[in-house]
Amino acid sequence: MGYSSKLLEKAVDQFSTLPGIGKKSALRMALHMLRQPKENVELFASAIVGMANNVKHCKVCNMVCDEELCPVCSDPRRNRSLICVVESVRDVLSIENTQIYNGLYHVLDGIISPMDGVGPGDLPIAELEERVSSGQVKEVVLALSTSMEGETTSYFLYNRLKKYDIKITTIARGVAFGDDLEYTDELTLAKSIENRQLFKI
Amino acid sequence: MGYSSKLLEKAVDQFSTLPGIGKKSALRMALHMLRQPKENVELFASAIVGMANNVKHCKVCNMVCDEELCPVCSDPRRNRSLICVVESVRDVLSIENTQIYNGLYHVLDGIISPMDGVGPGDLPIAELEERVSSGQVKEVVLALSTSMEGETTSYFLYNRLKKYDIKITTIARGVAFGDDLEYTDELTLAKSIENRQLFKI
Repeated sequence: MGYSSKLLEKAVDQFSTLPGIGKKSALRMALHMLRQPKENVELFASAIVGMANNVKHCKVCNMVCDEELCPVCSDPRRNRSLICVVESVRDVLSIENTQIYNGLYHVLDGIISPMDGVGPGDLPIAELEERVSSGQVKEVVLALSTSMEGETTSYFLYNRLKKYDIKITTIARGVAFGDDLEYTDELTLAKSIENRQLFKI
Repeated sequence: MGYSSKLLEKAVDQFSTLPGIGKKSALRMALHMLRQPKENVELFASAIVGMANNVKHCKVCNMVCDEELCPVCSDPRRNRSLICVVESVRDVLSIENTQIYNGLYHVLDGIISPMDGVGPGDLPIAELEERVSSGQVKEVVLALSTSMEGETTSYFLYNRLKKYDIKITTIARGVAFGDDLEYTDELTLAKSIENRQLFKI
């Protein structure tokens, strides 16, 4: 598509670097920006640059935060003997949203993926081991995805942590609430039967 | 959703002001930005601010451009007796993409919509009339949408321009290429029968 303005084209190119955004949506965003007052555009740009330049990672769990420690790690009411290992910041926010988990986290910010050139050394696994070896931890919950990479990472972590006197668990897989059995894939259905639980009222 | 970082939250809020972007996509975009090198984030921000501050509107047709005149208006090969009136910059880019249209444009950058407080005086309609009254124009094509607002605007423009010795046309409506008749709405199907054309080989 030929644009009538190089400036517009540059902005569209930049918007289309965003995940899930194609050229058409990027154009829509650029034209939306053109219709905004200049102050709003400045605000938009400075919020993003400000975040990129000033955001920190929690020195304990690697979560995105504004201080040395993230709100979870610095909260005295959280259960310090429980660590949930997740792939991304988004996973932490999703779990926090359920309001059911009271332990700490460990954000890998990636997953072992030889295809993408990500090895165990690229992830904060030594830091996790250090936390576990301190003796305060009783359980590590592996909440990684069931993709090939997720399973590989879980297996790697299990091997690294099994020598410690802790429980290593993984989140339950099964038929989601509201899902029909007939539309559930066989693996999930099989797992949910295998891991059946006592009926509680 | 509670974020672990105010800076992250601000960036997410800004991304979610973009058209079609909800909180979840905005979070994905913000975290994507966090993973980029700082130079890329600066580039992103400056492309958008640069566009907002420096882009011009063609003084003839109101199209977004970098100079006084847009590439279409300054192209001597374009047919100056033909003006296509469109609602937005995107419509111009779509029509240019077809490579079938050789005339000029007039970008309203909006549409008459009393519900949104947009009256005829808010659109460059006087400028269109001025172009038409110069005598060089032989035909005005109204390429506005068939929404209530689009029809209102077309009707208004027709009334303003009918006193001039020009042809006022509108783009053909009909069954789109590849569409099945049985799934076409009745109005479109009716129009396409009413406006049937001689079969050409």
